[in-house]
Amino acid sequence: MTQLEFAKKGTISPALKKVAREESLHPDELVALVARGQVVIPFNSNHPRLRPLGIGRKLRTKVNVNIGTSRDFPGLEEELKKVDVSLRYGADTIMDLSTGGDLKKIRKTILHKVPIPLGTVPVYEAAIEAIEKRGSILAMTVDDLFAVIEAQAREGIDFITVHCGLTSKAIQRLKSQGRVADVVSRGGAFHLAWILHNQKENPLYENFDRLLEIARAHDITLSLGDGLRPGSILDATDRPQVEELLTLGELVKRAREQNVQVIVEGPGHIPLDQVEMNVKLQKRICHDAPFYVLGPLVTDIGAGYDHIVAAIGGAIAAAAGADFLCYVTPAEHLGLPSVDDVREGLIASRIAGHAADIVKGVPGALDRDLKLSQARKKLDWDKQKALAIDPHKFEDIRKKRKSKTEACSMCGEFCAMRLVSEFLNSHGGPDAVRC
Amino acid sequence: MTQLEFAKKGTISPALKKVAREESLHPDELVALVARGQVVIPFNSNHPRLRPLGIGRKLRTKVNVNIGTSRDFPGLEEELKKVDVSLRYGADTIMDLSTGGDLKKIRKTILHKVPIPLGTVPVYEAAIEAIEKRGSILAMTVDDLFAVIEAQAREGIDFITVHCGLTSKAIQRLKSQGRVADVVSRGGAFHLAWILHNQKENPLYENFDRLLEIARAHDITLSLGDGLRPGSILDATDRPQVEELLTLGELVKRAREQNVQVIVEGPGHIPLDQVEMNVKLQKRICHDAPFYVLGPLVTDIGAGYDHIVAAIGGAIAAAAGADFLCYVTPAEHLGLPSVDDVREGLIASRIAGHAADIVKGVPGALDRDLKLSQARKKLDWDKQKALAIDPHKFEDIRKKRKSKTEACSMCGEFCAMRLVSEFLNSHGGPDAVRC
Repeated sequence: MTQLEFAKKGTISPALKKVAREESLHPDELVALVARGQVVIPFNSNHPRLRPLGIGRKLRTKVNVNIGTSRDFPGLEEELKKVDVSLRYGADTIMDLSTGGDLKKIRKTILHKVPIPLGTVPVYEAAIEAIEKRGSILAMTVDDLFAVIEAQAREGIDFITVHCGLTSKAIQRLKSQGRVADVVSRGGAFHLAWILHNQKENPLYENFDRLLEIARAHDITLSLGDGLRPGSILDATDRPQVEELLTLGELVKRAREQNVQVIVEGPGHIPLDQVEMNVKLQKRICHDAPFYVLGPLVTDIGAGYDHIVAAIGGAIAAAAGADFLCYVTPAEHLGLPSVDDVREGLIASRIAGHAADIVKGVPGALDRDLKLSQARKKLDWDKQKALAIDPHKFEDIRKKRKSKTEACSMCGEFCAMRLVSEFLNSHGGPDAVRC
Repeated sequence: MTQLEFAKKGTISPALKKVAREESLHPDELVALVARGQVVIPFNSNHPRLRPLGIGRKLRTKVNVNIGTSRDFPGLEEELKKVDVSLRYGADTIMDLSTGGDLKKIRKTILHKVPIPLGTVPVYEAAIEAIEKRGSILAMTVDDLFAVIEAQAREGIDFITVHCGLTSKAIQRLKSQGRVADVVSRGGAFHLAWILHNQKENPLYENFDRLLEIARAHDITLSLGDGLRPGSILDATDRPQVEELLTLGELVKRAREQNVQVIVEGPGHIPLDQVEMNVKLQKRICHDAPFYVLGPLVTDIGAGYDHIVAAIGGAIAAAAGADFLCYVTPAEHLGLPSVDDVREGLIASRIAGHAADIVKGVPGALDRDLKLSQARKKLDWDKQKALAIDPHKFEDIRKKRKSKTEACSMCGEFCAMRLVSEFLNSHGGPDAVRC
């Protein structure tokens, strides 16, 4: 039984119970959200020592970290360091997007290392196998693709990106649109090439019921990919993007009917004034399915700092209702991220999620800001550090730029907090202003 | 004559002409904006080799960099490096907030080095002089404060922060409010202490006409400070903040009547869903005066990454109409920023400003994204680098994470751009998918 099936029957599964406790929600409320598909709990029983996690409405905004080798950087060791950093700095989920080295070994090693939901994009492995076995991505068969999906589901992968909505019709929309950046999704590009070359419909769309059978059997959550997401803000919210979204909306309904948990992926490069609208459009078209956004990136010129660009878009998106943020690193558009890039990207996304959770009214979010600000007023640096988004960075900067006073080295004796708290409360305290 | 006086008479000054050219605006349109006070051109004729700059409606969002010594880090040399970095990475204005070392020498050196508007907070120098001469900030006289303001105006300072709105009444509002973080503005704290100790009204409010005389004589732009800006998101948009804003609105009107250019400073720590409202409130209450925001910071827990927190708030604020962003560095709340912190903070704010300019429709903003995305599609790395927000960082990451292919090391042979452009256009191109 999938978590959705349990919930539809009103059964509070052990996983749901844990999620409810973690999110300070009553299990009865959570079970209703899961039953309606507004919340998913990606939870493959073959994933050892997995801690259950909820994604969706009324829950804390979650952050995913993409790791994985490439052909230029195929080493497993660096990726395992990225896993460590991800776990230490609070990633909620990880996706292994490896395309270099021994894919099966890498995935298995990561799966056994992480107690948080692990996602993949199976078409990567299928495409690489097709090159190896048949000489080209284009020669991949439908069975090849489904064999990979089924194998990964059996292994214990918790959620998979499947580009089911990139149909022939969507490609026609793409052609008639005339985009600045065409297609920037790697999986999307594979599907597009395959469809055009073979003159066949998208195999994941045509065989969606087959996909649902596998997903249901292993309770693997489908993350409906947006292969046509805009790769330039000039392409945002255009006809191909929305065409694909309409298809995903249909597929959400079909998945839920088969008790398969489903979320929807979203853009991408979106100018600031279209971010909220994109979230509302997705929620409406996709029957309030949890929304998993990549960024959004509110400008195309930020390479080197795209974690900041994505934090801007991600905060706005999450405040508008997006449930799940895929992090973006400073190396985006430039290369495979380093371990440091992973940390920077993760923290930036967590800031975005937290800023949104405050205004979403997520239990406990604002309370942390309150406690930190109270500690700040008291110049209690240890407590501030403990509550800061990254206590290590907090400590590093404090050490490098330390003050001779109890305040910080920006204001020192002229610290406003110190001056005012003595003054406002005592109406005396000239000690503070003598210096 | 001030720029406002020229504009009211319909005279297109040489400075205004240059600003119009830079902003791709017709001088007739700009002169009307300046005449109404919706745009200011901080331009003190005693500032050598100053390039005129406009701030306000219809113009590119501007970014200010705060530099300056503290008692813990009084060295001029490091501050001059910060100036270099600020100029190289595109700061529009600089504020010298020095409180350590030889203040006059530091300010003079910076003034002669920067061809962009330079701002200060004169009460810092006045307060430090009062400590030296009279033993306490509290013993500062009204004449002491005005002497400093006049001297700085004569030197060539282009704009000054003056906390005129922190009145006795505002302090009453503060007391009755009961804040989490009381006062976090250093200048605000000085004024509050002085007012409470001396049982007198704020000297800059009481003697506002005297301030206007000096400002008018030297065309120094007044930046009406928000001494009661919230220092925790839990204090955002509260009664003391709005009380001060109401006073600033009155003073904007009085300044303009005396042909003094004026802008208004704003928060501070503001939750995401109150940012737009704050901008609209300021614009309405302050007669559409240019709005200069510090951040806003959308969470209190980001120390170490407050440049990212501020980029989120700054982008939203600027998109809603804020005209001028004061940068925030990673060292905010922790210490005086290093040279690297200055660069990081500046770039983050420039990203925020640019993301907003795209949706504000600022001429040329979107065009840069278009050109970069076109270069990205062609895998033209040199052109991408030239158009990126920080070409040096772009190059650094590229070098560290280089690919053996013409694409980047994330996807290499599987680059979606490469795959799709060959495919979508030629319907063939199996070269791209053979690998």
